[in-house]
Amino acid sequence: AAVAANAAKAAAGGDKKKKEKFTLKTPKGTQDYSPEQMTIREELFDTLKTCFKRHGAVTIETPVFELKETLTGKYGEDSKLIYDLQDQGGEICSLRYDLTVPFARYVAMNRIRNIKRYHIARVYRRDNPVMTKGRFREFYQCDFDIAGEYDLMIPDAECIKLICEILDQIKVGNYLIKLNHRRLLDAIFAICGVPEDKFRSICSAVDKLDKSPWDEVRKEMVDVKHLDPAVADKIKTFVEMNGKPFEMLERIRKSGLCDSNQDALAVLKELDTLFGYLRCLGVADKVSFDLSLARGLDYYTGIIYEAVVTDSDRGSIAAGGRYDGLVGMYGSLQVPSVGFSIGIERIFSILEEEALKNKKKIRQNATQAYVVQLDKEGDMEERLKICNDLWNAGINAEFTYRSTPNSRKQFDAARDLQVPIAIMFGSSEIETQALKIKVIETSEEFIIPREGFTDKVKEILKELESKP
Amino acid sequence: AAVAANAAKAAAGGDKKKKEKFTLKTPKGTQDYSPEQMTIREELFDTLKTCFKRHGAVTIETPVFELKETLTGKYGEDSKLIYDLQDQGGEICSLRYDLTVPFARYVAMNRIRNIKRYHIARVYRRDNPVMTKGRFREFYQCDFDIAGEYDLMIPDAECIKLICEILDQIKVGNYLIKLNHRRLLDAIFAICGVPEDKFRSICSAVDKLDKSPWDEVRKEMVDVKHLDPAVADKIKTFVEMNGKPFEMLERIRKSGLCDSNQDALAVLKELDTLFGYLRCLGVADKVSFDLSLARGLDYYTGIIYEAVVTDSDRGSIAAGGRYDGLVGMYGSLQVPSVGFSIGIERIFSILEEEALKNKKKIRQNATQAYVVQLDKEGDMEERLKICNDLWNAGINAEFTYRSTPNSRKQFDAARDLQVPIAIMFGSSEIETQALKIKVIETSEEFIIPREGFTDKVKEILKELESKP
Repeated sequence: AAVAANAAKAAAGGDKKKKEKFTLKTPKGTQDYSPEQMTIREELFDTLKTCFKRHGAVTIETPVFELKETLTGKYGEDSKLIYDLQDQGGEICSLRYDLTVPFARYVAMNRIRNIKRYHIARVYRRDNPVMTKGRFREFYQCDFDIAGEYDLMIPDAECIKLICEILDQIKVGNYLIKLNHRRLLDAIFAICGVPEDKFRSICSAVDKLDKSPWDEVRKEMVDVKHLDPAVADKIKTFVEMNGKPFEMLERIRKSGLCDSNQDALAVLKELDTLFGYLRCLGVADKVSFDLSLARGLDYYTGIIYEAVVTDSDRGSIAAGGRYDGLVGMYGSLQVPSVGFSIGIERIFSILEEEALKNKKKIRQNATQAYVVQLDKEGDMEERLKICNDLWNAGINAEFTYRSTPNSRKQFDAARDLQVPIAIMFGSSEIETQALKIKVIETSEEFIIPREGFTDKVKEILKELESKP
Repeated sequence: AAVAANAAKAAAGGDKKKKEKFTLKTPKGTQDYSPEQMTIREELFDTLKTCFKRHGAVTIETPVFELKETLTGKYGEDSKLIYDLQDQGGEICSLRYDLTVPFARYVAMNRIRNIKRYHIARVYRRDNPVMTKGRFREFYQCDFDIAGEYDLMIPDAECIKLICEILDQIKVGNYLIKLNHRRLLDAIFAICGVPEDKFRSICSAVDKLDKSPWDEVRKEMVDVKHLDPAVADKIKTFVEMNGKPFEMLERIRKSGLCDSNQDALAVLKELDTLFGYLRCLGVADKVSFDLSLARGLDYYTGIIYEAVVTDSDRGSIAAGGRYDGLVGMYGSLQVPSVGFSIGIERIFSILEEEALKNKKKIRQNATQAYVVQLDKEGDMEERLKICNDLWNAGINAEFTYRSTPNSRKQFDAARDLQVPIAIMFGSSEIETQALKIKVIETSEEFIIPREGFTDKVKEILKELESKP
């Protein structure tokens, strides 16, 4: 016994002082998910997967870290938020910042000409975490992308339709999809007189309009990014415009603001095609054509969009766009792509809040039968044999790990786990080769023969499940 | 257009020289999983989850990295394989090395007194990768653990039963579960005369016996770990012993080898209880009581086990044991635990090899209907409307992203995707307000009315699914 104690002490790391200094926590901006949270999460993942599969998507997985150079030059000003691995000899790697760049790398590397895939996984950003608002350093993203050389706006329309399907299904409340076009934004900058080398940085400034008022954004444009104040004011007349898709097209045409720019006119024609498709897909009324939408990432080249819940201030819960140049950044193959990310963490916090509000106890296990031993000085072997028969018949079963169990505690455990039935036995049941079944909710009890009892249990469970 | 071209160039990162130097690959020891691989993986995950839920397990998720000190002092000689994150200001973190240590940290941090959980996730080891043998630096682990103060050997027996259930279900071939007890091993070292401070390092040496012959292991003990050669030779008489559980107990008792050590005798009695339980659970014959089994990790304190496929040389495909001290390393709460890891990557490579051998094309999507437009100069809007009706009815549907499609290519796509039915329309179907259905496998065709067609499609799909 002394040997064992010493071994345990050795295993416990010895040195008490060290132990005291230690803080028991997860790294900043990260969190554990409890069984209850996982139940909500897995249900949501299943819903999302069902939606993606409805549109024929396959799934892939990529490493959680990439070569650092794979991520370099893709995220503009946000690149400073990338997590690097320590150089322990060998390659320099970074944790993935999103799922889009690894997807583009995957497509380029495998020379894939077309793919429609979803990917649900965690990404990493050394951002300032606001845990209460669902902003973490490690968080799930859920992406859907269509890569391939296709006809104008067809996959783009399907993406927007799919976002609507998902948001309708998970019941987050009313929402709106703000939509704009990167090339239209560039054309607007050109029309206003923004120098070409300032397009991306002014675009970053416009991107902040959803969080900051115009005056602040203007200040950034003029003071920090040295834009001519008159040019900034011209931008204002554009970015204030938003509304229903076809009405906006009409308004812009009538205003004549874009008439001088051929590229702007071409984009407006493309958007007309898109809006027509969205009408066929029954989602045109969910879209707001919004000239202030910019999206921060550098790689977008076509339409960009962001879904916002309109009856709360949670910000965007889905966003994406077209990025025709990204795959080509990794080699000679150009594969135009369009897709979106679902802001799954925000949706989780909505769902968790609701679960809390409804005070509904979320069931975390799937146990169907709890084996209860009625006599305290019971037969451990018989208990195991009953469980064994249940497991071998594919029935989810549990029992207490006490060798001399108290029957009240066993029923408490069964109730606590929300198990539908208890299977009871004591010395009298062993003698008569029988088992007693109790339906926990109704306290209904009946006796069944031990021989072939699993078939009867399956019947009972099926009947209980069919009840509302 | 010039603006757009410039934007694309800017997005593409400019500088051609940089691009040329870039190697398109995933980091050493990591890999992407293709849709085909993901299909196999997700099927296996589902099987595993079903098995875990059959035993009432819940699931949790922990961050992919932990504070470095959380991992310190848990892995013995393997600690050098831990991946560290770069110090970018703030906390010092490392990627998780396994799922057991984060689980123990979770239990301690949340002061959980009992939990039965599974966890399927990736872990990270800077080991020398042998990709062809399924040895990676980033790989999936699949853990099941029972934590809580329970009666002797009951959860331990359930773990071994569950390993057998899993291995039976995934059909990896014949297997054997080698089993030993850490405290018995320590007692044996004491009996042989190993100095107490050498217990762990001699244990590490014994652990290599599954890969190296005795002579090499003896050499390590004597030359590297400075063990008295006579002591090493005594160890040999023990570690050569293995066999059926009860037969081995009998053999050890008869040999009198352990009679001098009270702790050894106590462990043998505990094992007698365990083997009795395993007999009730119908798995005693799957176990080989093997005194050479040591397991490398420091934290084990009770039974240890390792499942090996006997008709191949793939090594262990599941392993685990009891670790009663690990949770206590993080605070004052002691929570005895037992569990195991399934070597999921090895199982994958077995399943992938089989799929390759059977040359069966693995279906990666779940599409049920492919909408085919028969006239080349077709009606794009009608096509979208049909898809929209299908999606809204919950039917998985795809269509081509060409605005002027070729009907042969559409059927090729449907066949390639292994979609069961095609839903066809041309100008004549639009005129008669009908749709043509084609069962791809049989080429059977029939006409249904456009109005309410989704109910009919559901019926057809149900009928096709019910066929073998």
